[in-house]
Amino acid sequence: MPAMNAEPSNPKLRPGISSHIDRPGPAIVLVEPQLGENIGAVARVMLNFGLTDLRLVAPRDGWPNEKAHAMASGAARVVERAHVVPSTAAALAAAQFVAAMTARPRESLTPVLTPAEAARAMKTRIARGEACALLLGPERTGLSNDDVARADVIVSVPVNPAFASLNLAQAACVFAYEWARADGLTAPPSDLDHAAPATREEFDGLIDHLFAELERQRYFYPEEKRPIQQRKLRAALTRAGLTEGEVRTLRGVIKALVDRRPKD
Amino acid sequence: MPAMNAEPSNPKLRPGISSHIDRPGPAIVLVEPQLGENIGAVARVMLNFGLTDLRLVAPRDGWPNEKAHAMASGAARVVERAHVVPSTAAALAAAQFVAAMTARPRESLTPVLTPAEAARAMKTRIARGEACALLLGPERTGLSNDDVARADVIVSVPVNPAFASLNLAQAACVFAYEWARADGLTAPPSDLDHAAPATREEFDGLIDHLFAELERQRYFYPEEKRPIQQRKLRAALTRAGLTEGEVRTLRGVIKALVDRRPKD
Repeated sequence: MPAMNAEPSNPKLRPGISSHIDRPGPAIVLVEPQLGENIGAVARVMLNFGLTDLRLVAPRDGWPNEKAHAMASGAARVVERAHVVPSTAAALAAAQFVAAMTARPRESLTPVLTPAEAARAMKTRIARGEACALLLGPERTGLSNDDVARADVIVSVPVNPAFASLNLAQAACVFAYEWARADGLTAPPSDLDHAAPATREEFDGLIDHLFAELERQRYFYPEEKRPIQQRKLRAALTRAGLTEGEVRTLRGVIKALVDRRPKD
Repeated sequence: MPAMNAEPSNPKLRPGISSHIDRPGPAIVLVEPQLGENIGAVARVMLNFGLTDLRLVAPRDGWPNEKAHAMASGAARVVERAHVVPSTAAALAAAQFVAAMTARPRESLTPVLTPAEAARAMKTRIARGEACALLLGPERTGLSNDDVARADVIVSVPVNPAFASLNLAQAACVFAYEWARADGLTAPPSDLDHAAPATREEFDGLIDHLFAELERQRYFYPEEKRPIQQRKLRAALTRAGLTEGEVRTLRGVIKALVDRRPKD
């Protein structure tokens, strides 16, 4: 069912990143959504996590919806390409695996998965070429029992039982986030990952420098405490995992601290 | 620092559920939030995932904020108890471990964790009695480099690099969801978990019943195909993992299907 998951490549995107967001993902199906703001917020968070196939079953305020466009922020393409259909059955016609998100599974013998489990199941199925969809119900009432019965699995977000009512876009956010994790999207690396850690020789040079200056200041006292004082200082600075550059910086700091020349 | 994490128990909550949401959790610190709607949405999703300690650094439109109350929906208690402070330093004064959420770590030698890693780190520290906080920046600009530098770790959500701008409440949602997972909050069980699976004897009774009726209808044909036809039917029905009740239901279905008595 390529129509459900395929997404033509967008030449406006920077090269090297289009590969991710043009990968197939599940459709997000909002059943009778009430607020345009929520539709827009769902579209935005979908694109944040690499999803683009939005389907709207009989949106209450009609379509297109100005508020949906405003809330979508930079995700206009998701809103503009949303499919509007008259019934849940129509939205799911091409789907081969359907998950229904509901806070509290009611009288249902459908298996319940966590968002992470559902995302992983969809990742496996989509890799095999299957069309997958996530169903989300209207804001006020959630999915009807009839719509839940259309699903292969229920997805239930672990929420505080005393306050279980998740906003529609937040429910979509949790699923989309788990989809991105299942799809292998990873956080950008820290600069720390690219900075060269100091060698032990460089680090020891810093420690020797520090200890020599402290010695000169008669810091280590009494004499028999010197070994433990030095071990503690070394352990604390070691724990910082200093980079080459930071070792140079700290040696400059020590030099500056001990400089007794008169300053202007 | 009990003031940061403690939450007095609320006698209005149903017994048995207050224990979870009164457990200590990290503070959520919004630095110069612009829109009251976002503050309210953050409060709502915090309570969804069992968090209650909200701190606001110099909210743009002042405080209290009507729009925040409206968006918080049932989470009024989180909004009403929010601490408003003039500076990030004041918000973090009691914190012992601070994570800064930012989409793209810029020129920073602070370690970067995923939301799941940050939540697990906080769970460990809070279990030891440490006060933890998550910093989130203003909608338009995100956290300043100076505020990021106050953090022990950066939390970076894995997002689509072509559309990385997460709504403030969605960023809070991802963290709060991971907090709930780290804190051991689990999805409610399915009714399926409580339903007794059929014994093999009950299931075999269904299969025998079905095969006998199919035999009578001359379904198995030609004769040499019978074993494979029966194996396939048995495997398909076995895969359903039928409950006792469902076995009884299906036997009723078979009876109804074969009933040849005239109907009104």
